[in-house]
Amino acid sequence: MAVHAASTTVVPAAELRSFAAKVARTVGVPEEDATAIADGMVWTELRGVDIGIKRLTTLVSRIRAGGTRADPRPAVIRESASFAVLEGHEAWGQVTSVRAMRLAIAKAKSTGVGACVVRDTGNSLAMGYYPWLATQEGLIGLAITNAIPLQGPWGSTRKLLGNNAYALGCPAGRHAPIIFDAATTTLSWVGIHEYEARHEPLPPGAALAADGRPTTDPAEALAGILLPAGGHRGFGIALMWEILSGVLSGGEHFAPLPDDNGAAAVANQSTFLLALDPSKSMPHATFLERVDTLIDRIHACPPVPGNERVLFPGERGAEVAAVREREGIPLAPVRVNELRALSHDLGVELPRSLA
Amino acid sequence: MAVHAASTTVVPAAELRSFAAKVARTVGVPEEDATAIADGMVWTELRGVDIGIKRLTTLVSRIRAGGTRADPRPAVIRESASFAVLEGHEAWGQVTSVRAMRLAIAKAKSTGVGACVVRDTGNSLAMGYYPWLATQEGLIGLAITNAIPLQGPWGSTRKLLGNNAYALGCPAGRHAPIIFDAATTTLSWVGIHEYEARHEPLPPGAALAADGRPTTDPAEALAGILLPAGGHRGFGIALMWEILSGVLSGGEHFAPLPDDNGAAAVANQSTFLLALDPSKSMPHATFLERVDTLIDRIHACPPVPGNERVLFPGERGAEVAAVREREGIPLAPVRVNELRALSHDLGVELPRSLA
Repeated sequence: MAVHAASTTVVPAAELRSFAAKVARTVGVPEEDATAIADGMVWTELRGVDIGIKRLTTLVSRIRAGGTRADPRPAVIRESASFAVLEGHEAWGQVTSVRAMRLAIAKAKSTGVGACVVRDTGNSLAMGYYPWLATQEGLIGLAITNAIPLQGPWGSTRKLLGNNAYALGCPAGRHAPIIFDAATTTLSWVGIHEYEARHEPLPPGAALAADGRPTTDPAEALAGILLPAGGHRGFGIALMWEILSGVLSGGEHFAPLPDDNGAAAVANQSTFLLALDPSKSMPHATFLERVDTLIDRIHACPPVPGNERVLFPGERGAEVAAVREREGIPLAPVRVNELRALSHDLGVELPRSLA
Repeated sequence: MAVHAASTTVVPAAELRSFAAKVARTVGVPEEDATAIADGMVWTELRGVDIGIKRLTTLVSRIRAGGTRADPRPAVIRESASFAVLEGHEAWGQVTSVRAMRLAIAKAKSTGVGACVVRDTGNSLAMGYYPWLATQEGLIGLAITNAIPLQGPWGSTRKLLGNNAYALGCPAGRHAPIIFDAATTTLSWVGIHEYEARHEPLPPGAALAADGRPTTDPAEALAGILLPAGGHRGFGIALMWEILSGVLSGGEHFAPLPDDNGAAAVANQSTFLLALDPSKSMPHATFLERVDTLIDRIHACPPVPGNERVLFPGERGAEVAAVREREGIPLAPVRVNELRALSHDLGVELPRSLA
């Protein structure tokens, strides 16, 4: 499988993880949180999604500007047997989401289901990482975040709701875990930037220009609004996710959350993490076998012409990750330059493969 | 608001509820379950959705044919503090889903979150009714069902997954509860039958014919497959819903569940019900006020041309229900004839307005 082009530099995952953790520690992030941040960023890179290590520069600039606190000591402020509220104190989103998912996992193992809602935190990067953490403990997981307003309620072009990305995961036995990671909009904000970078038009039906006209121009879409995935359904899901995150947490909702350009502005994001322990329903081995059978039945479906085979959500990512664990993570020149700048700036030694 | 045409007969909700409960009792359904069945059917009719009272005939024929058991005594076979598994013993789906949601509600009030998964049960009709039950207790609710295979995994035209309908609900203060009720496909099976009955073509992108061609012909779509809402996202959600219902329950998954034509065949459906108590996060009045503010901000959005105003999910249904509670439920001649046939067949006295 071709996972990188000739112009890229290949870095072993362990080296990249170690570098990212050192950078975070250097700007004041405690050891445990720095490890969590680096793990999540490298997990994303391993799966071929470019929203991991690129955010290391954002982390540093936000901590320096004061929009993100390096050592905020997030605290559980409400707790019952299967539910908790976490005050993020403007921590980096990965830090709170990992803590919240671990708390949800512990509660699920005890009571069957556990949920934790977080307020006053920042961007959690790839949402799929958090249910994946649950699958590593044998549990089903759900992660939801609210975000910068980018879409309108159904039937309006006023920006009110974010992508409100979410992810669900389920462990399997012989197979990789199922990880379904989605935005509630047809395209994510990150996705539109990628079309723009490639100078490609958007697929029709993904966005409206600021004046309400349908557009396939990435620049017009970035100035306009995103359309929900599945029409009114995408709006319905985004609204319920806003309730489970921004409303239920006591944090901001429909908030003018700052984007990466506002490094000094607090993020005020909220997240919702849930875990469910299937071993409360049946022996765990039986559950894993049932999931494997489900996956086998998906694989046995004939693909439409042009498709080699039928995949389950998360399968491609797991395959790419297996290759990259073995062969290293390819980084585009722009990423390598960012890491070199961080190394120079903070005096953190570059991975050998980049030095 | 015009809620019925001249050819319809108008029945007070209380009369229709009483008639439906008597019919259910006459075929052997215990008092409490008969009341639950009638409540759910009339709730649906009040909201202008024609999948309520039309199923009364199905209930009777399935109980007579043996596909549904009238008095199956559904039993909790696994239970932990926030999770339970209910064996449905081929009960009518409304019976088990109401019990399961009540159990989830009780667990949520105790621990914060409660979930109940049901196996070996039948069709639960409108999924919105179950989170609505949660909202009546001040809770957030989620209901999921698996169903007859109608859609393929993404990238295949083999029927494998059902509509896998689901609904989420949230209580509000000044406003009606938010009730978001959706199928994971672009159109529901019921929706396609409605297009067929009106002799209208389907919207493009909703279905493929049996040979894999895109089609807008309802008959071709009924013989072919439905396409997921939001493309691969609809498949991802449907798959996760199949895991939370059919797999987690220990029941059938991706099952050739019988449709209404197979009254003697057991249904083997599974459902998943979850409730969450927002008063575990903040005082309940504060939560309701926050939801009201959210709704006010939706209402304040300017509508696109041609739309009178911007609505939240469940708002139209609540408005229709308020009118119908006051003025009665309009029934089409075909429904009135079904009720007359049931009355004649079972010796249950017709509502006065139909006699």
